[in-house]
Amino acid sequence: MPHRPSSSFLTLLLFAILPLAFFPSLVHKALTFPLSLFSPRHAPIAPPCTCCALHNPSPTIAPPTMSWFQKQFTLPQRSRGSYLITNEVEQQLPELRDYKVGLLNLFVQHTSCALSLNENWDEEVREDMSDALDRIAPEDRKGNLYRHSAEGLDDMPAHIKSALIGASVTIPIKDGKLNTGTWQGIWYLEFRASKHSRKVVATIQGEKK
Amino acid sequence: MPHRPSSSFLTLLLFAILPLAFFPSLVHKALTFPLSLFSPRHAPIAPPCTCCALHNPSPTIAPPTMSWFQKQFTLPQRSRGSYLITNEVEQQLPELRDYKVGLLNLFVQHTSCALSLNENWDEEVREDMSDALDRIAPEDRKGNLYRHSAEGLDDMPAHIKSALIGASVTIPIKDGKLNTGTWQGIWYLEFRASKHSRKVVATIQGEKK
Amino acid sequence: MPHRPSSSFLTLLLFAILPLAFFPSLVHKALTFPLSLFSPRHAPIAPPCTCCALHNPSPTIAPPTMSWFQKQFTLPQRSRGSYLITNEVEQQLPELRDYKVGLLNLFVQHTSCALSLNENWDEEVREDMSDALDRIAPEDRKGNLYRHSAEGLDDMPAHIKSALIGASVTIPIKDGKLNTGTWQGIWYLEFRASKHSRKVVATIQGEKK
Repeated sequence: MPHRPSSSFLTLLLFAILPLAFFPSLVHKALTFPLSLFSPRHAPIAPPCTCCALHNPSPTIAPPTMSWFQKQFTLPQRSRGSYLITNEVEQQLPELRDYKVGLLNLFVQHTSCALSLNENWDEEVREDMSDALDRIAPEDRKGNLYRHSAEGLDDMPAHIKSALIGASVTIPIKDGKLNTGTWQGIWYLEFRASKHSRKVVATIQGEKK
Repeated sequence: MPHRPSSSFLTLLLFAILPLAFFPSLVHKALTFPLSLFSPRHAPIAPPCTCCALHNPSPTIAPPTMSWFQKQFTLPQRSRGSYLITNEVEQQLPELRDYKVGLLNLFVQHTSCALSLNENWDEEVREDMSDALDRIAPEDRKGNLYRHSAEGLDDMPAHIKSALIGASVTIPIKDGKLNTGTWQGIWYLEFRASKHSRKVVATIQGEKK
Repeated sequence: MPHRPSSSFLTLLLFAILPLAFFPSLVHKALTFPLSLFSPRHAPIAPPCTCCALHNPSPTIAPPTMSWFQKQFTLPQRSRGSYLITNEVEQQLPELRDYKVGLLNLFVQHTSCALSLNENWDEEVREDMSDALDRIAPEDRKGNLYRHSAEGLDDMPAHIKSALIGASVTIPIKDGKLNTGTWQGIWYLEFRASKHSRKVVATIQGEKK
């Protein structure tokens, strides 16, 4: 009777293997586990879907994270001089960090001061700048230069300097930071002799991270 | 011989169970069906996909009202002087009212005039400005200042003033209006002595209401 | 003994069928293959997903062609002078052609040179411009004008000229081209006497064709 033991053994073996048929993923895992030890880990990839194709004709122009942000803030009172305000601006605008690529427009709502970009290291550059602008748009000490002097000797020169330097700067944003050069800082130039506080409108636009 | 009946029974049992192995989801359903009677019904949830995460970091910044608008218009002929054109610009651009937040770029397509922002009240400021720029970039009456004089004494000074003041201004928009200060107006500065009509490109971009 | 041969046969049959349980997709393929011969071929359709509804509220206001692009490039070394760089800029930015409407911002990452728009025809205008700026912001030959002279006589005048002319220009884009006037060109003004190479950040934003 050589058959019976063999038949029973085979039947028992089947019982041992059969449960595996109900868990095919376990079988797959058991087979591929040794291989996974040698291959790099990666996050599971979600399946592509039809809407992706509509929204992403190419990965470079995906637009749904475009965003606008506008905020007004006030610079503390300061008298005639050139001031480095890069840190003040960045503290007022933590939103900058959210933008992968974009532009920051700073716009001062006054006509006798200005915003500019210039050297961010030597304070003497800022002193020299204010003096140089005084020579370019001098005060009217002899009374033969300007008609408009409603608010004093420094009034009309301030308007001229404001036109020359400009009321706004536009600065590129990259990876959540202002994309300025190593030696560039944001300057606020006050042209009135007495202390003035100035309102700045900051407009950020771009593609969010 | 206790083995044989048992062996046959087991073999038949195997045949009964085996088909289930080919339909694992049926087994799962059969097991979970009683539980589903007690759990709340819900609509089937579509699978998340990679594009969703990329496109919708948060539902608050959905940007479907972003918009661009560009228009060219012509300023009427004017000779040397500084002109307040805020009203002209706003009349040319009723589209400004549609924008909740944005920027207006005005760009003059010429190299001997300029656009700026300055005082909007006292006309004498505008006269003083033109005169001050004449002192900063004077005409070449003795013939020792400029090489270029193709179009007259006022030609090269006009190019210099244009570089100093600039061909364009960028102004923030808020709630359908230019977000300028109380005393700020848009200026067009004509640097040529004779009358010229000038073309302006207005580009509005922003988030519509 | 009719049982034994039957039992052995069944056991062997089981062994033959069992492996199929581990490859259910093969069973499915084997069953559906004859049918597929009679049905039209089609690409598998990706399942729709929830994000589609969020992104496409209506086809008319979908803004999928809005786009941002930013690139840094370097201008070749040049010494003091005014240079027409329109062609260089356009060669660096073939992406301009993709935009139906938009704005190009060029931003130089330095504080002793400038970007501007001015006359694109007569080279003498560029020579006259550099000379005129030398008179407006002169070198300090007598040593009584500036505190800051770390890098030579041309150092502080360069910072002043940079503030007067500006570090950036913003130019409208229309139908894939810069929407400038007939006589307008992009100028790079180098204010340092010795050769410098300068980095420019170009930011294009707008609505793609």
